[in-house]
Amino acid sequence: MHWLKEYDVIVVGGGHAGVEAALAAARTGCEVLLLTLQLDAIAQMSCNPSIGGVAKGILVREIDALGGVMAQNADATGIQFRMLNRRKGPSVQAPRAQCDKKAYQFRLKAICESTPNLDIQQGSVARLCVKGDAVTGLVTDLGIEFAGKALVITTGTFLRGLIHMGSEQRPGGRAGEGSSGLSLELKKLGLEIGRLKTGTPPRINGRTIDFAACEQQPGEVPPPTFSLCLDELEGGDEELFTLNRWDGQMFHVEQQPCWITYTTSETHQIIRDNLHLSAMYSGQIQGVGPRYCPSIEDKVVRFAERERHQIFLEPEGRHTQEFYVNGCSTSLPFSVQSAFLRTIPGLEKCHILRPGYAVEYDYCPATQLLPSLETKQIGRLFLAGQINGTSGYEEAAAQGLMAGLNAARSVRGEPPIVLRRDQAYIGVLIDDLVTRPIREPYRMFTARAEHRLVLRHDNADVRLSDIGSMVGSLSIRRQTKWLAKKRRVEELLEDLNEAKTEGRTLFEWLRRPDFRWMDLPQPFHSVEPEIAAHLECEIKYAGYIAREREQIERVRAMEDLLLPAWLDFWSVVGLKQEAREKLQQIRPATLGQAARIPGVNPTDLAVLRIALKRGA
Amino acid sequence: MHWLKEYDVIVVGGGHAGVEAALAAARTGCEVLLLTLQLDAIAQMSCNPSIGGVAKGILVREIDALGGVMAQNADATGIQFRMLNRRKGPSVQAPRAQCDKKAYQFRLKAICESTPNLDIQQGSVARLCVKGDAVTGLVTDLGIEFAGKALVITTGTFLRGLIHMGSEQRPGGRAGEGSSGLSLELKKLGLEIGRLKTGTPPRINGRTIDFAACEQQPGEVPPPTFSLCLDELEGGDEELFTLNRWDGQMFHVEQQPCWITYTTSETHQIIRDNLHLSAMYSGQIQGVGPRYCPSIEDKVVRFAERERHQIFLEPEGRHTQEFYVNGCSTSLPFSVQSAFLRTIPGLEKCHILRPGYAVEYDYCPATQLLPSLETKQIGRLFLAGQINGTSGYEEAAAQGLMAGLNAARSVRGEPPIVLRRDQAYIGVLIDDLVTRPIREPYRMFTARAEHRLVLRHDNADVRLSDIGSMVGSLSIRRQTKWLAKKRRVEELLEDLNEAKTEGRTLFEWLRRPDFRWMDLPQPFHSVEPEIAAHLECEIKYAGYIAREREQIERVRAMEDLLLPAWLDFWSVVGLKQEAREKLQQIRPATLGQAARIPGVNPTDLAVLRIALKRGA
Ligand SMILES: Cc1cc2nc3c(=O)[nH]c(=O)nc-3n(C[C@H](O)[C@H](O)[C@H](O)COP(=O)(O)OP(=O)(O)OC[C@H]3O[C@@H](n4cnc5c(N)ncnc54)[C@H](O)[C@@H]3O)c2cc1C
Ligand SMILES: Cc1cc2nc3c(=O)[nH]c(=O)nc-3n(C[C@H](O)[C@H](O)[C@H](O)COP(=O)(O)OP(=O)(O)OC[C@H]3O[C@@H](n4cnc5c(N)ncnc54)[C@H](O)[C@@H]3O)c2cc1C
Repeated sequence: MHWLKEYDVIVVGGGHAGVEAALAAARTGCEVLLLTLQLDAIAQMSCNPSIGGVAKGILVREIDALGGVMAQNADATGIQFRMLNRRKGPSVQAPRAQCDKKAYQFRLKAICESTPNLDIQQGSVARLCVKGDAVTGLVTDLGIEFAGKALVITTGTFLRGLIHMGSEQRPGGRAGEGSSGLSLELKKLGLEIGRLKTGTPPRINGRTIDFAACEQQPGEVPPPTFSLCLDELEGGDEELFTLNRWDGQMFHVEQQPCWITYTTSETHQIIRDNLHLSAMYSGQIQGVGPRYCPSIEDKVVRFAERERHQIFLEPEGRHTQEFYVNGCSTSLPFSVQSAFLRTIPGLEKCHILRPGYAVEYDYCPATQLLPSLETKQIGRLFLAGQINGTSGYEEAAAQGLMAGLNAARSVRGEPPIVLRRDQAYIGVLIDDLVTRPIREPYRMFTARAEHRLVLRHDNADVRLSDIGSMVGSLSIRRQTKWLAKKRRVEELLEDLNEAKTEGRTLFEWLRRPDFRWMDLPQPFHSVEPEIAAHLECEIKYAGYIAREREQIERVRAMEDLLLPAWLDFWSVVGLKQEAREKLQQIRPATLGQAARIPGVNPTDLAVLRIALKRGA
Repeated sequence: MHWLKEYDVIVVGGGHAGVEAALAAARTGCEVLLLTLQLDAIAQMSCNPSIGGVAKGILVREIDALGGVMAQNADATGIQFRMLNRRKGPSVQAPRAQCDKKAYQFRLKAICESTPNLDIQQGSVARLCVKGDAVTGLVTDLGIEFAGKALVITTGTFLRGLIHMGSEQRPGGRAGEGSSGLSLELKKLGLEIGRLKTGTPPRINGRTIDFAACEQQPGEVPPPTFSLCLDELEGGDEELFTLNRWDGQMFHVEQQPCWITYTTSETHQIIRDNLHLSAMYSGQIQGVGPRYCPSIEDKVVRFAERERHQIFLEPEGRHTQEFYVNGCSTSLPFSVQSAFLRTIPGLEKCHILRPGYAVEYDYCPATQLLPSLETKQIGRLFLAGQINGTSGYEEAAAQGLMAGLNAARSVRGEPPIVLRRDQAYIGVLIDDLVTRPIREPYRMFTARAEHRLVLRHDNADVRLSDIGSMVGSLSIRRQTKWLAKKRRVEELLEDLNEAKTEGRTLFEWLRRPDFRWMDLPQPFHSVEPEIAAHLECEIKYAGYIAREREQIERVRAMEDLLLPAWLDFWSVVGLKQEAREKLQQIRPATLGQAARIPGVNPTDLAVLRIALKRGA
């Protein structure tokens, strides 16, 4: 083979995972190539035009703290910003932004083009090259060969992607795009392949919506954003695809409303009458779909008692009439989609621009991966994103970032970065993936994090920025910004601890549930809202947080006990048969991971701990 | 079949032809549906990011005068404007604009979304429905059915599109996109299908170009634009994809330079050494390519004596680093492309974002069409664009506009609009297509127009605006604008005829070759440059133009002699055998058309004229 150039890291796929992987590896100094089916579809949002939301919004903040690009890109191209669950507990609050879909993707394409050390190129990867037990490169379907010391595969829903609508099917990872047979190659290399599915609602033309019949949902002012470094958006709208602008200490966004309407009994009747025509219901799809993200068919069947379901009409961009019909994911035939939409107030005359559909695709069960996201079978082959059985842009981006960093580190001979469950949702995500076999596409929820009180959006930077600096993925500008913020928080804490009113320190006042930041003396009112919210939360919940930290420390002892690679679970006396099989199959890296494998119980853990102490 | 809605006109394909067809039909009041493979690729420029140029720029002005959208869209999204051949004769001058590729397409998508009577939808048309000898509708590959009274097929390079690079092939009408088997359906309906090919150069990353080693080619100030109604761009950059702005009686464009460099003997050597690896040269491609638009392989072989070839580096947009390497169309393997590019000054370190390739595709020889662009075989089935064997955005758009107008007229029972060869390049284009079998993709040249002195860019509106008004495709605003311009021109002509200097009228002065507009008295200097150029040309060439008009009138008599549909060429006594066959095959509509069919000579025409007079 004659290689054109040997790259350190090659990333396959320019979705949310691939972009973060490529940028992260390049930032740490590697020579990186990103190959993707369509350069114009880089970072395309396959489904809803929004980033963040409960739990996911915290992932986005964490990605930002580690030097990733998703947060700032959402801030730059957002057209509506809200903080979800503002009235609920701190652990379930999270920012969410509607974004301009095209601006989001073309801004990221431009960033990829301009990033030093990163080459991007259009191409469809057909084969991987493996020598011994490690990857050496790959070949595209037009016979182009590239050598790479490490590969990150982030091919999303495209592996043998099959689109379903009614009784019809077409190959494709997304409507109007191609698919890839690369999963068959992965299978040949010994990886196990499974099948999942997901769905998307129709997009309709805003010109044909009667907005007067819908409720308006405005964005929040000031807009709750994601990124620590909003001020990097100074250039603002001089960049074609940067819609928003930092100027005069303020972030300027021209927000657009979303619209709310509801299905009717007529809608449900049409759907029920045509259930047998739905791809999801007629038994054609083998892949398993996400229960937590039901299609409208599912909702009508599973919640038969509900009189109506909420529908959000979300603009897909500032300069398009395209609207996303959130809540109406469907694989019914087009004529049925068209008919049931028209029974919804405001949509009586709506015209569908792109019909809804379901897509079925191959994935690689992630229990075949190490916590670094490297495959256990093949050295320096990393997998990230939807290919690992997850669903969602944020879950994909988080994995992409870690896989990119770890691929780069593996090339430099550095140990992988693995975040703990008590450090980040990213830690929870990856730990869940590599230890627990999934039954449906995996999505992040706050309930998955046992330490969610310490994993908040307001402290993502506190938790992770130092790690980002350490691994070299945070720019100097961001490090400086973070250090300044850290100093500011410390100074404010000192002030709060020193200043007193009515015999108590301000710190003590703030611990009282009914005392808010705005009840502090005047000088504190000008504190940046983000910092005020963070301090208020840390102080008010200080008791709970301290207890949580203690518990974390206790678990850590076990968590960190490494299970050596030579350990043969078959030969450990006293393990139950089921535990043996699961352990041997998944090969957890630590005792903590072993504890989270379904089928491994506390007795098995005790046996393991003893075995470890004995040295076998 | 259960139709969802019966449309008047359905357009298949959202390329340059399809968009004009759909908008034109909708503007004249028809209910229109536009179906296309990918909504995000509406009006995508498959090859170079520019509109206009010699002859083509005149087509664009004509499209504008008839109410089409290409001219204004190029003005709105242009990043470099130039008037080609400014120093040469008036008939070869023409405007050309580099456009921001993504802005160009997404602005048109937004226009389509907002146009009344026009529905657009993503879908791949798989079958046509025909009843008797006329179309009734179509079915997509996902089984969606639509009824339409007339269909316009504008599927470009996508019919069994096959992409070639080196020895490899992949289906696709453009790299990274799908292809369509619809040509097999057309064949089943009795249409003849042929095969053509075209090619495109690599796109490279501007970050990796050494611009200091290239010559800069700036745009002209003020920018020579296309559209009569620049002032409709008042909104300007408030629209995300409208880059330029009409403000204070001026058109504001932030122009970007192109860059010029040259191939070297080393480049030629590499290409020669690898010729056997080129898809075009290894005999894999059956389709015929355009000789006038040679690949770099062609150039190196056919012009072996040339030491170097000029290469233009053209930016693909204002906010991307992507550059189009104009002059380097190639189907060599990627490694060879990469190697030869790196021997070109400025490109020593260049990185390819998208490799060049050739594409082979099915087309329908357009001699199967009436001059309205309706097929002779199947009623109300119109074909326009690359499917008719042409090449180029402007050629496609011109046909699309006429096919859309004529499809709409056929639905309303109105006679088709057919432009004469002396009225417009559009007339020349369509007349050539329907009368002369092609051997390679057809492209417009000034040499194709026998009356090119009257078919200039500066009088396109004079020639066609009244027709545009008459057929209802010009908005009231544009009609008003045109009438004001017409009045202004007439008034100026009067002034020039009345005012005298040194005993001659200013009109007479202007006829002198060495007397320029700026030599007129001061008050005339403030005349709008477009109008001044038009008048100067009309007056200076008045003699030639008058002679040309006379000749046109003489030919017209014959041109307009209709050949009735019942005429059986086999039974006309005295026709040569070759003429009989050609006439029966092509069935020209007028004696003028018959005259332009290769193989039909003056004697045959005389025979035909006599036969017509006799009534058989
Ligand atoms: C129809 C649909 C509905 C969805 N609905 C939801 C939902 O309701 N909720 C939710 O959270 N998520 C949903 N998703 C999932 C969401 O889009 C993904 O989770 C997310 O985009 C995954 O990111 P990724 O980077 O892993 O993959 P993707 O975004 O899919 O990107 C994969 C990339 O890999 C490229 N690629 C593929 N194969 C190759 C190859 N062989 N060579 C080179 N490049 C290749 C593709 O071009 C693409 O750029 C949906 C996705 C689809 C398609
Ligand atoms: C690789 C390449 C190189 C080229 N090089 C040159 C050049 O050097 N010079 C030049 O002048 N021209 C060149 N061209 C040609 C130029 O791009 C075309 O002339 C022009 O785009 C034709 O416009 P069109 O509207 O006819 O078709 P296209 O622009 O090709 O648009 C066709 C549209 O039809 C849609 N479509 C296709 N099939 C279906 C279906 N079954 N159902 C629904 N929609 C469908 C597609 O999605 C697409 O939107 C090149 C084209 C290609 C692909």
